[in-house]
Amino acid sequence: MKETKHLSLKCQGLAEEAILERIKETASRIETRGSGVLLGIGDDAAVSRGRTGYDQILTSDWFLEGSHFLRDKHPADAVGWKCLARAVSDVAAMGGVPRCFLLSLALPATHTGTWLDEFLGGLRRAAKRFACVLAGGDTTRNANILINVTVLGETQTGRAILRSGARPGDALFVSGRLGGAELGLRRIRNSKHRPDSQDPVLRKHLYPEPRLALGRWLAERRLPSAMMDLSDGLSTDLPRLCRASGVGARIAAGQIPRVPMPKGVRSPGDDPLEMGFDGGDDYELLFTVPRRKSKHLPRQVHGLPITAIGEITEEQALLLIRETGRAGPLPNLGWDPFRKHR
Amino acid sequence: MKETKHLSLKCQGLAEEAILERIKETASRIETRGSGVLLGIGDDAAVSRGRTGYDQILTSDWFLEGSHFLRDKHPADAVGWKCLARAVSDVAAMGGVPRCFLLSLALPATHTGTWLDEFLGGLRRAAKRFACVLAGGDTTRNANILINVTVLGETQTGRAILRSGARPGDALFVSGRLGGAELGLRRIRNSKHRPDSQDPVLRKHLYPEPRLALGRWLAERRLPSAMMDLSDGLSTDLPRLCRASGVGARIAAGQIPRVPMPKGVRSPGDDPLEMGFDGGDDYELLFTVPRRKSKHLPRQVHGLPITAIGEITEEQALLLIRETGRAGPLPNLGWDPFRKHR
Repeated sequence: MKETKHLSLKCQGLAEEAILERIKETASRIETRGSGVLLGIGDDAAVSRGRTGYDQILTSDWFLEGSHFLRDKHPADAVGWKCLARAVSDVAAMGGVPRCFLLSLALPATHTGTWLDEFLGGLRRAAKRFACVLAGGDTTRNANILINVTVLGETQTGRAILRSGARPGDALFVSGRLGGAELGLRRIRNSKHRPDSQDPVLRKHLYPEPRLALGRWLAERRLPSAMMDLSDGLSTDLPRLCRASGVGARIAAGQIPRVPMPKGVRSPGDDPLEMGFDGGDDYELLFTVPRRKSKHLPRQVHGLPITAIGEITEEQALLLIRETGRAGPLPNLGWDPFRKHR
Repeated sequence: MKETKHLSLKCQGLAEEAILERIKETASRIETRGSGVLLGIGDDAAVSRGRTGYDQILTSDWFLEGSHFLRDKHPADAVGWKCLARAVSDVAAMGGVPRCFLLSLALPATHTGTWLDEFLGGLRRAAKRFACVLAGGDTTRNANILINVTVLGETQTGRAILRSGARPGDALFVSGRLGGAELGLRRIRNSKHRPDSQDPVLRKHLYPEPRLALGRWLAERRLPSAMMDLSDGLSTDLPRLCRASGVGARIAAGQIPRVPMPKGVRSPGDDPLEMGFDGGDDYELLFTVPRRKSKHLPRQVHGLPITAIGEITEEQALLLIRETGRAGPLPNLGWDPFRKHR
């Protein structure tokens, strides 16, 4: 972790140093024992020791003001939590365990006080929750809040679960319930007020929980043939898994586990099925299991529901069986991976 | 490597996918054999296998339009080269060898054509030069060009060279010549034209060479007690090394190896000594060697000059012996690490 020098700002002054000191202080409050991190913030780079018999998992994620969060709407604490949670979710999606992360942070001068403190508070809680050590990064000044998080994780050698292993006949599962993050996002966008970060309707959008325990449980039992996390919504992510595996899928609309939306929570235009299909940011796991193994799958793992929503097909198409019984192509609001083969 | 979804942009369309495909294509043209990368772009995360007997080195670096480069002045090819070179330089500064990197790239729609191609061209050349494999990352859309690069490298177990090992009496060295990147930056800023990327005066600023071979040579012989790369200039970086080691330093202005500035290259206001002190982006190595070992140090390693510029002192102060023989505190345009002990 180091501070970056600007083309236009020769003298960085104490502000940048003070930010770095506060990040260091945050890092010092996260337990490093067992993480493999030998050298953290303060040198040219971090040093970490991998364990024999384990592969490294590496992932980077943008978290940008205006694109991924709104400066005036999202609590700084939630920004801190979520920027790490979504990167850690990629490790969960490989069946891995996070070890450490690098935080790259660019801030306007106006956000180096209370905002930074709250941000680091949320980040620290997430780091403790996911047992992921803050090992380094880079800080600089910028007019917009820019965040990039890199997570280093591990799996047992050769055990990472890829997107590309799904085979025709495999059963398709999702964890949890879908659409909850989209519901929270809509509430926040439609409200003129700063959201109450304790509001349970907003929880899944503000403080997503990467499915680390489930990912690990599945990987240890070698159950999934393919797995990914749902970051962009089922209608966008399922085609990605299918394309990576060279297969298609048939899913039953009626089986998709949706977030309950009682009156008072639901607004005009909120369609639970559509939100379960297209809503992003749920960070649930989508995975396939060979048919003979799928019988051994419980309905819950560590209290988290697991639901069969369909099956993998040889034909490279995505078919949706509607609740009326009618079948049709999966409505895809994103891109169609089968439209163009590159 | 994956594309990020926007809050405000539900449908990403083909543009984002096309960018990803071009990055994939770039990655496919970099040799991965021996890098340890088992799984590259296209899944939730990359998978890499560490070697027994080696520690991992991890570093992230911002490279932002407006702060680190100018959209209309810096050739895209140089932006691609330099964003990787500066992150790799941190690995060189630990005496390590780079293995793979993650590229996080945010681009405006106007820069997904020629600009992106040229950027990826420079990036690919750098990746080949440094033997560093493009293993993953994240792409998204943004009004400004944002780049963040994470490099994973390695050193033999326990052999990483830190900033904190300098001891009183150690000799202080720098590689190469200082101020060359600052000279190039000044030429670019003062010119109304787009720079000629072949101009040798601009070379060090546009296409810096991380000192990987020297860093490794020094680490293999266990010569340095401390080492770092000069990214922000001697006057800013030397205090950092001293602070990390809890020591001071005395340096001789006359010994600082400066870039030659013949008439025609030098502009009014160009002071070679000041530029050697304060100019950033040189990416030379600054290192200390215990006195008894320093005699074994050659004047050049693989053709790169090595110059003794002073020594480490017990007193935590920075003293500059001017060419007139007068001694005074090191003029520090950045912060003074000894002004405030936190």
